[in-house]
Amino acid sequence: MMKILIIGATGTIGRAVVHELKDRHELILAGSKSGDITVDINDIRSIIKMYETLPLLDAVIVTAGTVHFAPLTAMTSELYQIGLTSKLLGQVNIVLQGIKYLNEGGSFTVTSGSANRDPYKQGSSSAMVNGAIDGFVRGAAIELPKRLRINAVSPSILTESMKNYADYFRGFMPVPAEEVAIAYTKSVEGAQTGNIYSVGELFLK
Amino acid sequence: MMKILIIGATGTIGRAVVHELKDRHELILAGSKSGDITVDINDIRSIIKMYETLPLLDAVIVTAGTVHFAPLTAMTSELYQIGLTSKLLGQVNIVLQGIKYLNEGGSFTVTSGSANRDPYKQGSSSAMVNGAIDGFVRGAAIELPKRLRINAVSPSILTESMKNYADYFRGFMPVPAEEVAIAYTKSVEGAQTGNIYSVGELFLK
Repeated sequence: MMKILIIGATGTIGRAVVHELKDRHELILAGSKSGDITVDINDIRSIIKMYETLPLLDAVIVTAGTVHFAPLTAMTSELYQIGLTSKLLGQVNIVLQGIKYLNEGGSFTVTSGSANRDPYKQGSSSAMVNGAIDGFVRGAAIELPKRLRINAVSPSILTESMKNYADYFRGFMPVPAEEVAIAYTKSVEGAQTGNIYSVGELFLK
Repeated sequence: MMKILIIGATGTIGRAVVHELKDRHELILAGSKSGDITVDINDIRSIIKMYETLPLLDAVIVTAGTVHFAPLTAMTSELYQIGLTSKLLGQVNIVLQGIKYLNEGGSFTVTSGSANRDPYKQGSSSAMVNGAIDGFVRGAAIELPKRLRINAVSPSILTESMKNYADYFRGFMPVPAEEVAIAYTKSVEGAQTGNIYSVGELFLK
């Protein structure tokens, strides 16, 4: 029975992760607007306040953060910065600030996505941010203190997202959130570190 | 004979790229302090002014940009932002602003590095930024107009850098800048796009 903080618990992936883990562990659910505790991942003070409020944790899972989708020629450094600030540095701050609030041997599991390996139109910011997250995870894994571990889950397009975004993902094989959730379990309940768990990718090449 | 802009021409890699390409092409050398033209890659207005001053180009090579090196537990989002602003968004702005100044079928070649695949201590920012660049290149390649191409060169530690940084790269196989330069030639004079050219990596795994 681990004490696990799930940030982004009300999203499609977050809900599936909760369903996957709730019978075996004590979950603390965090969201931007609801949950056991609220947190703004774009605000480091909000992240620190969240950790100060909670007991020591065995695992932190993050399934939160946004990026801006637009055609390449409509992108600017300001629009790229949206994803760098939210999905990248938001998750990074959750890791950096969480180090002292995790028990020895605990784990961080962050969320990237397949765009950096399997790009799609209007997804250059997603490709950038996901590549940055994967790189950070590999770099951080070898330097984390307290035997802490870190992995990323990198899902392809969700089955649940296809009803709104299918036109951007023709030829992609969608993956249900409940399958993506299993990768978070591997990170939390396994012993690996520095890994990027790709879920649901069908590379047609 | 192509007209090629090389930004960062006075660095170790930049000089080797110049040596590799100078007998076959017309080179325009740009640097922060010297060269045929000076440019501050952190300032989009400086980038735009540079392009406005130059003739239409067949290729742009960037071997410029910095990141902050420090132990993971000494890093902050502000210190990560240094590399995101300079090496990542500096190069991204050179690509985005360059689109209208390149001839049809021209190419961009940017520089990342091996830290996101082969991490080392104090290199978590390098791992993050290089992963972001690689992701951006894969995402941008499928959306560039005018049949423009883009690739990244991702070198391991340079032989020339080992005299100062060997303690951080024990067990890494250094690669001479003149070999790294060949990868830029493949990007500029070849026809590939969306590729990450790894140079000099010895993965001991």
